[in-house]
Amino acid sequence: MVALLSVSNKSGIVEFAEGLISLGYEILSTGGTLKTLEQNGIQALDVSQYTQSPEMFDGRVKTLHPKVHGGILYRRNNSEDVAIAKHFGIADISLVCVNLYPFKATIERTDDFNTIIENIDIGGPSMVRAAAKNFTSVLIVTNPNDYTKVLENLQSNKNTLEFRQSMMIKAFEHTAGYDCMIANYMNQRFNGGFGGAHFISGKLVAPTRYGENPHQKGAYYEFENFYSNIFKTLKGEISFNNLTDINSAVKIASSFGDAPCVSIIKHGNPCGFALKSNALESYKEALKCDNISAFGGVVAVNAPVDIALAQEINKIFIEVLVAPQILPEALKEFENKKKIKIFTCGGKTLKFPKDTQDFKHIEGGFVLQDSDCVEISEIKNAQCVSQRQATEAQMQDLEIAYKIAALVKSNCVVYVKNSAMVAVGMGMTSRVDATKAAIKKAQDMGLDLKGCVLASEAFFPFKDSIEEAHKVGVSAVIEPGGSIRDDEVIECANANGIALYFSGKRHFLH
Amino acid sequence: MVALLSVSNKSGIVEFAEGLISLGYEILSTGGTLKTLEQNGIQALDVSQYTQSPEMFDGRVKTLHPKVHGGILYRRNNSEDVAIAKHFGIADISLVCVNLYPFKATIERTDDFNTIIENIDIGGPSMVRAAAKNFTSVLIVTNPNDYTKVLENLQSNKNTLEFRQSMMIKAFEHTAGYDCMIANYMNQRFNGGFGGAHFISGKLVAPTRYGENPHQKGAYYEFENFYSNIFKTLKGEISFNNLTDINSAVKIASSFGDAPCVSIIKHGNPCGFALKSNALESYKEALKCDNISAFGGVVAVNAPVDIALAQEINKIFIEVLVAPQILPEALKEFENKKKIKIFTCGGKTLKFPKDTQDFKHIEGGFVLQDSDCVEISEIKNAQCVSQRQATEAQMQDLEIAYKIAALVKSNCVVYVKNSAMVAVGMGMTSRVDATKAAIKKAQDMGLDLKGCVLASEAFFPFKDSIEEAHKVGVSAVIEPGGSIRDDEVIECANANGIALYFSGKRHFLH
Repeated sequence: MVALLSVSNKSGIVEFAEGLISLGYEILSTGGTLKTLEQNGIQALDVSQYTQSPEMFDGRVKTLHPKVHGGILYRRNNSEDVAIAKHFGIADISLVCVNLYPFKATIERTDDFNTIIENIDIGGPSMVRAAAKNFTSVLIVTNPNDYTKVLENLQSNKNTLEFRQSMMIKAFEHTAGYDCMIANYMNQRFNGGFGGAHFISGKLVAPTRYGENPHQKGAYYEFENFYSNIFKTLKGEISFNNLTDINSAVKIASSFGDAPCVSIIKHGNPCGFALKSNALESYKEALKCDNISAFGGVVAVNAPVDIALAQEINKIFIEVLVAPQILPEALKEFENKKKIKIFTCGGKTLKFPKDTQDFKHIEGGFVLQDSDCVEISEIKNAQCVSQRQATEAQMQDLEIAYKIAALVKSNCVVYVKNSAMVAVGMGMTSRVDATKAAIKKAQDMGLDLKGCVLASEAFFPFKDSIEEAHKVGVSAVIEPGGSIRDDEVIECANANGIALYFSGKRHFLH
Repeated sequence: MVALLSVSNKSGIVEFAEGLISLGYEILSTGGTLKTLEQNGIQALDVSQYTQSPEMFDGRVKTLHPKVHGGILYRRNNSEDVAIAKHFGIADISLVCVNLYPFKATIERTDDFNTIIENIDIGGPSMVRAAAKNFTSVLIVTNPNDYTKVLENLQSNKNTLEFRQSMMIKAFEHTAGYDCMIANYMNQRFNGGFGGAHFISGKLVAPTRYGENPHQKGAYYEFENFYSNIFKTLKGEISFNNLTDINSAVKIASSFGDAPCVSIIKHGNPCGFALKSNALESYKEALKCDNISAFGGVVAVNAPVDIALAQEINKIFIEVLVAPQILPEALKEFENKKKIKIFTCGGKTLKFPKDTQDFKHIEGGFVLQDSDCVEISEIKNAQCVSQRQATEAQMQDLEIAYKIAALVKSNCVVYVKNSAMVAVGMGMTSRVDATKAAIKKAQDMGLDLKGCVLASEAFFPFKDSIEEAHKVGVSAVIEPGGSIRDDEVIECANANGIALYFSGKRHFLH
């Protein structure tokens, strides 16, 4: 009974080896792992001694040998295999513990291609995959976090086929993830991120109770350790739709630096946003935009939530609250609220990952693109194409409206007044319909749009939206420009005394 | 100069070997590949003879040997490595041609787990990865489609570092894709498709000119060969947004069997749909719903496009036409239309892939779910909860409205009359706002909603939408039901003589 130990990450390996020895395993090891074991007084057989073949080429060839792979791969229930193994002095390697050269850590610390190439493990994945293939007889261990459980299972005779099967799956996940990383890295380095194949690989964080709908199973996966380590659940169980809404909510609320702003999301789109002098005021103002849609919505607060804000939030049913912190006394306010779910991420303000690439599922495949991002220069350097210029206050509102518009589903228009969203049109096939629907809603809500500003994430194809905007008193507009009818749009703005800015950059989001 | 050939897919290997021999390569080979070469009179050295180590365990261990891997991995520019290689009789394996056991074909043809396990290649990926790692000296070939190009490059002294590097990337894509497939298969088999890691891997079909917006790079990837082989471009270059719109358009238009229906999409949502006795009538009716949004839209026709329909389509600017076929004379009609893009997929009707799982990007990861699907039984067995029942004609319209509603962004409502969509509310944070916006639009379009039916993809939380619907003469409604105020909704339907059906199944789509 031989255990083959060859790990790049040495953490816990000494204790693991000790545990295995006390269970009667002989240890076969190599390179740095062998050295670590020997330094800790653990007896292990050098693979080179076992194979009678020296380690070669600075460790490039150590374990790629029939006595190693035969010892892993021979079929224990096949008498011929057993006889051959015996004949060639091939050991019964029934446990393989391997983790791989740190490719990821290497590309994070250096650009030196030789170093990176040297950190592509060849022998490791071969052993992992061989052991996984023969999981009916061999236990494969690829993660130091599993050492304790493995020892426990071995000690209590629970090294079952089912257990080995679960470890086999982990092993193939490990090698798959490793090569995905290598392939994506090479395509990033040499093909600008859009190579001949692309791999999106995620680690399970948790299943969700269901998917977008109750008859669909669902789960969420992370690229790094954000959701499992940094994103914290204080209360409630996150759902599939919560996750996509939180994604929208936090992207909007974290678009304004450390300003204590608040966004409210329903079905992936904002129905409220405000950026006031403190989070409580921001929340109150955000809610005014559409306090009906806000019911059951997702609220992101870009500041710690204190008791006053907690009490305010509790006045209606909010399904999800996400903030950098919930102060302890504020958290108490939510204790008796059964349905609210509370999550934190960040420190003093919301902190959220920003992936460099974005993808969407289309049946039979996916589309991949560089992530979109609003540069502050788009607003600061936007070209004033009207006679009238925006005041400083209007420019601030235009910035808010423009940043939000880039994060609302197209076609969208966003109306902002005094740093609060007062109307929003979204997800419609016609831009002027979005313009009108937003106004209609604001009127139903009793909001006065007079003096507000308007942003559109793509150009206005006609002057009709400007006309509609003028009717309710919009004072300034920002849009990318680029319509063949820009002249009409500009003329309409001038005729109505509206300040009109062209940013030059479209921000469709579908 | 040795070339190691060990392929599962033997296609083209004989000619490739002949080409290599004529370039002065010695061939090293094994197992089935060796047999094929010998049968074709090609001289090759058996790997077992080279290694002096027998093939073992029915081929489980053949190439996992220091003389093979050393020959691939030793550093040609390192004098010590070269000396060691010489000392141990290690050959200069400077070309490795390997493709892997057909894991995919195996899982497609059998459920037998032993057979599946036996088709996990161990030696193959080890050689591929070793050769890829040492690409500065070794050329790795993993795809028979590359044989001709490889021979050409070798013949014309173009076996450059850059070429080997591109083949290295392909090699890692090959092994990554292989292990993704294995890991996903195991998680499908043992963890219901939601395992500890999940891999989405796609092959590049083509870059798109840009992403969702001009400042984003983009490309599209396929799981199988749908987009590269079955989806055909007849005219124009597909864009990122075209792909997502086509995805919506074809999903809707192919929801009705072989009925010659037409859907029109803008920004991912439908602005027109009709199912009439022929495609021309369907198109004309579909356009009436919102002929303004249809401008620059994506039209999917679930029937061959003939000359009459082509002429009708040409009356306004349609950006994309997708249909199973465009008849030759119809195609001529589009010759002088510079901007229209035309694609085909299917035979007599549209044929599109239907993935079993769906995913969405959230920053830092993704959410994964079973795909949603409307079962016809949801409509056929929908519970009539009102006093009035729908007529047969109304039931047909309800079916159309319901199927479309499941494919419109939430919150949505779909109004259908005489098999044509006459109004649609979409993507809004409030359901009643969607109800109202749809009605407003239909009125602007001069459409008479009297007698139409209404579907909602999720329950009406209040009776307000039913009240709005009644005002314009909606005769029947289908929705999942499940609101705590269902009673009020039913009462309102009864008070207004509306037939109301509960399907029991929600179809959120965000």
